[in-house]
Amino acid sequence: MNGFTSWPPEVTPDQLEQLTLLATTYALSHSLLYLPPHGDIPPPPAPASAIHAPLSLFPTPVPRELFVRARRIQRAYNVLYARVAIDNKFLDEIMGAGGVADVDEFTGELWRAWKGLREEGPVQPLHLGLFRSDYLLHQPTSEAEISLKQVEFNTISSSFGALSQQVSGLHSYLQASTGYFGASPLLTPNNLPLNETVKGLVAGLAEAHNAYGVPDAQILFVVQANERNIFDQRLLEYELLLSHGIHIIRRTLPELEHSMKLSPARALLLPSGASSASPLSEIAVVYYRAGYTPTDYPTPAIYATRANLERSRAIQCPSLALQLAGGKKIQQVLTMSGVLERYLSREEGADEVRESWVAMWGLDDEDLPIPGAKPTNVIHVDDVKEPKGTREARIRADTLVLKPQREGGGNNIYRAAILPFLDTLPAPERRAWIAMQLIRPPAAVEGYLVRSGDAQTGPVKGRVVSELGIFGWTLFGRETNGQESVREAEVGFLVRTKGEGVDEGGVAAGFSVLDSVLLVD
Amino acid sequence: MNGFTSWPPEVTPDQLEQLTLLATTYALSHSLLYLPPHGDIPPPPAPASAIHAPLSLFPTPVPRELFVRARRIQRAYNVLYARVAIDNKFLDEIMGAGGVADVDEFTGELWRAWKGLREEGPVQPLHLGLFRSDYLLHQPTSEAEISLKQVEFNTISSSFGALSQQVSGLHSYLQASTGYFGASPLLTPNNLPLNETVKGLVAGLAEAHNAYGVPDAQILFVVQANERNIFDQRLLEYELLLSHGIHIIRRTLPELEHSMKLSPARALLLPSGASSASPLSEIAVVYYRAGYTPTDYPTPAIYATRANLERSRAIQCPSLALQLAGGKKIQQVLTMSGVLERYLSREEGADEVRESWVAMWGLDDEDLPIPGAKPTNVIHVDDVKEPKGTREARIRADTLVLKPQREGGGNNIYRAAILPFLDTLPAPERRAWIAMQLIRPPAAVEGYLVRSGDAQTGPVKGRVVSELGIFGWTLFGRETNGQESVREAEVGFLVRTKGEGVDEGGVAAGFSVLDSVLLVD
Repeated sequence: MNGFTSWPPEVTPDQLEQLTLLATTYALSHSLLYLPPHGDIPPPPAPASAIHAPLSLFPTPVPRELFVRARRIQRAYNVLYARVAIDNKFLDEIMGAGGVADVDEFTGELWRAWKGLREEGPVQPLHLGLFRSDYLLHQPTSEAEISLKQVEFNTISSSFGALSQQVSGLHSYLQASTGYFGASPLLTPNNLPLNETVKGLVAGLAEAHNAYGVPDAQILFVVQANERNIFDQRLLEYELLLSHGIHIIRRTLPELEHSMKLSPARALLLPSGASSASPLSEIAVVYYRAGYTPTDYPTPAIYATRANLERSRAIQCPSLALQLAGGKKIQQVLTMSGVLERYLSREEGADEVRESWVAMWGLDDEDLPIPGAKPTNVIHVDDVKEPKGTREARIRADTLVLKPQREGGGNNIYRAAILPFLDTLPAPERRAWIAMQLIRPPAAVEGYLVRSGDAQTGPVKGRVVSELGIFGWTLFGRETNGQESVREAEVGFLVRTKGEGVDEGGVAAGFSVLDSVLLVD
Repeated sequence: MNGFTSWPPEVTPDQLEQLTLLATTYALSHSLLYLPPHGDIPPPPAPASAIHAPLSLFPTPVPRELFVRARRIQRAYNVLYARVAIDNKFLDEIMGAGGVADVDEFTGELWRAWKGLREEGPVQPLHLGLFRSDYLLHQPTSEAEISLKQVEFNTISSSFGALSQQVSGLHSYLQASTGYFGASPLLTPNNLPLNETVKGLVAGLAEAHNAYGVPDAQILFVVQANERNIFDQRLLEYELLLSHGIHIIRRTLPELEHSMKLSPARALLLPSGASSASPLSEIAVVYYRAGYTPTDYPTPAIYATRANLERSRAIQCPSLALQLAGGKKIQQVLTMSGVLERYLSREEGADEVRESWVAMWGLDDEDLPIPGAKPTNVIHVDDVKEPKGTREARIRADTLVLKPQREGGGNNIYRAAILPFLDTLPAPERRAWIAMQLIRPPAAVEGYLVRSGDAQTGPVKGRVVSELGIFGWTLFGRETNGQESVREAEVGFLVRTKGEGVDEGGVAAGFSVLDSVLLVD
C-alpha cells in the first residue's frame, strides 16, 4: 500500500504537459465526451461538438485484495437486491404508507403507482437491474487496516458504465505510450485491470431482450431532455446494435406521455419515428436513464406515464419495486440485526456484504446498532422526547452524514450542519432520513484533475478522494410457479475522484473526474 | 446506374432530422473529428473540445465495376510511382534544373536538396510511400458510358485515410440503425464496402519500421503547427501502438531544426520529450504530414532540416525523390507516348492505368497528344511564337483546367479564366503548368452535406461532385545489388463530396464533406 503515501508520482512540467495533451486527445477520439454546456440557449437538434469528460491523469491506487473483494461481493449484492425487490411486504412496510411514502413526496408517488399496478395484476414477472455499488476506502486511523465501505447502491440510471471503460482504456494508453515516464514502478500493464463494462451492461440488456422473446422488439431508452452525458448512453446503444442486432428508441418521459400505446395483450408500442404516423415498434425492455428524480416528472401525468410503461409487458430496468429497493432507507434497514440475513445466506456472501457497511440508523429509530467509536460530542439534549436515532445523531454529529431519501446528490447534511438541521427538521420527516457513519478515506492521496475548461492552465493538482463503483446486472422475478429466478453478473468498474473538501457532486456537475483503478499490493 | 438519376433518395423532414442527429452523434463518438477553429487565438496546449468533421448523410453511388477497377489499378500505380521515384535521370530532366525547378521555387528547393544528398551518397536505399490516387467519374455526354478518370496522385501527406474508415463506419451504422427508412433499395449492407484504411496504412508504416530493423526505434510524424485535422493522424498513431507496439513522436519541422541529431552511422536521433535533455530515441521512419507546401518551410534553414532528416538512415515517407515524383508535371509527362510504358508493362496493368487518364499537356509542349473532342473556342491567336501547348490551351480553354506545380489546391485556373491568365503568364513559367482536360461527372447527383456550424439549420441539400480516393502503400528501393525491390498493397478508399460549382477546396477548408461509397450495378 505504498501507493497511498506518495501518490501521484512525480513528473516534470514537460511530462505533465505531454500527458495532458495525450490524455485529452485520446479522450476526444474515444468518446470520453460530454456535450458542451449550452447555458440558456437550447442545444442544436444534432450535436455539433463535444468536450472531453473531466478526467484523472493517473489511475487511483486500490488495494488488489479489496478490488477483488468488491467485484466478488457484487454477485451477492445482485442477488440481495433482486430478492428485496420481490418482497412486496418489506418494501410496503419501509417505503409505503406509514413509512417513507408519507413524508417523501417522490417516494410516495412511485410507491402509489406501484401499488396501483399490483392491484391490476402485472403481466411481466421479470425485472432487470443495471446496478452500480459505490464504495470508499476506509481507514479510520492511520494505523488501521484499510477496508472497503459502501456509500450507496444504485438501482436506477447507474451512469458512467461506458465512460468508465474508456477511462480505463485511457490510462492503459498513457501507460503504453509513455510508460508514465517511469514515474512509478506501480504503473505497469498488470496493475491496470481490463474494464469491459460496455459489453457487460449490454449483455444484461440483451439477456432481458432475449427473455422477452420477440427478436425484432426494440429497447426503449428513457432519457432526460438536454442530457449532456449522452455518449455514456450512446456507446451502449452502438454495442446493442453491433453485437446483438438490437435497435433502440430514445424518448423522454414527456415525449412518451402521448406517443406510447398498449396493445390488448399489453405489448408496449411506440411510433419508431418522431411522427405519430410512424410504424409502431414493440418494446421488449424499458431502460431508464431518467425517472430517478422528481424533476423528471414535471406534471402528475408523467407519473401516470411511468406507471403505464410498467403496466406493459416490457421488462422494466428498473421496475418501480427495484427503484424503491434502491432507497437510502432500505440500505439502512438492511443493516439492522437479522434483516440482511432474511435475503442472503452466509454461503451466498452475507458476511462480506455486511462487512462492507458502516453504521447506519434511522433518525426515528429507537432500536439502534451500536457504532464502534465513542461519541465525540457530549451535548445537553433538552428534548427527551426525541427518538434515540435523532439523539444519537446529535451526539455523534461530527462523525456522521445525514441522507434523505432524495436521489441525485446535493441534499446530504454533514457534521457541523447536523445539529442546526435537526433543530428544524419536523418530527414526522425523521423517518425519511438516515444517519450514516462517515467513511474516512486514507489520508493524503493527491491527483491531477483535467477538466475541459482548464486546458489553458493545465491539470489541477490537489488532495482527492476516490469512489470505486462496481457494475452488475440482474434479471430476476418470481416465476408463475412461485419460484424465484435470478440471473446476474458483475461486469466492470468505475472510479470517480473528487477534490477533497468537496462533500457532494457527481462528475457531470464538474466537481469530480472520471478515473480508473491501479492495483497495489 | 439508376443511382445517379435519383440521388439521394427521398426522406421526410423528420427522418432527415433523425439521420442528422444520429450521424453527428456517431461522428463525435467515433473520432470523425476536427479540432475547432481557433481563429487568431492560439489553441490550448491540450485540446479541450472537438467538432465533427463535415460529412455526407448518404454514401455516394459508385459503379461497382469502376470501384473494383480503381482498387485493382492502385497496385499498378504503387509500382509505377516506385519506379519513377528511383529514376533519377527522369526526375532530374523534368523536375530539376532546366525543368520545373527553374520556375517553381519550391520544386527547386526540394530538387536541390535531393541533388545535394545524392552527391553525398545516401545510406538508406528504401523509400516508403503512403499514396492516395484521386478520381472522378467521367461522363462527357449523357449517353456516354461512365468511366473513371484520375485527378491526381498524392505521394506526400495523403490525408483522410483514418477518417475515411470512420465515415464508412458511419454510413454502415446509419444503414444498420435506421435502414435509411427504406428510402432506397440500393442502401443495403452488401453495397457498403468494408473500409479498413487505418489498419492498411499502418501496415505500410510497420513494414518500413520492420525493414529498418531496430525493434524499439520509433516513427517520427512530421506535422504542421496548429493542425486541426489531428484525429486523422492520431488514429494511425493508436493503431501503430496497439497492433504493432510502435511508438511515435510528433514534431514540426521548426521543432526538428535544433533538436534532431545524427549519429556517426547517421541514425536519426530525437529527444523523446520536449526538453533537449530527454533521452534520445532512434527514428526508423519519418512520416511527413507536413512539408508539402512552401509555408511549411518558413526559413531557408527548414529546407536544410528536411535534407538533414533524409541524410539519416531513417526511411523517408516520402523521400524527396518520391515527393518530386508526385508532381503534376510528372503526371502529365507520364501520359506522353511511350513514357508510362518505360515503367509498367502491359501485364502489370499499363493499359488500365493509361485508360484512367484524361488528355494532358504542358503549356510549353510542341509535341501534343490529340484530345478526342473538337476545339470549342475558335480564337485569333496573334502571338504565333507561343508553343503549341499554350495555343491549344487557348483554343480548348472551355474544356480545360490549368494546374501549376504548386500543391495544396486553390491555384488552379479554370475555363474562362484561362485566356486572361495566359495573357499575363511569363513565358518561362509555362513549363511549370499543365493543361488538363476537365473531367465531366455524371449530371444531377445531389447530396445532404452536414457541417458542424450548420447544426441549427440542418443539412445543406444540393448538387454535388464526388471524388473517389484509393489508398495504397509501397516500400521500395534499389538494393545494393542493383535490383529494385517493391512491396506494396492497396488498403482502402475515401470519397470527398463537394457542392457543385465549387471548383476548389479540400475538406478541411469546409468546401466539401467526407463521404463513402455505395456500390451500384
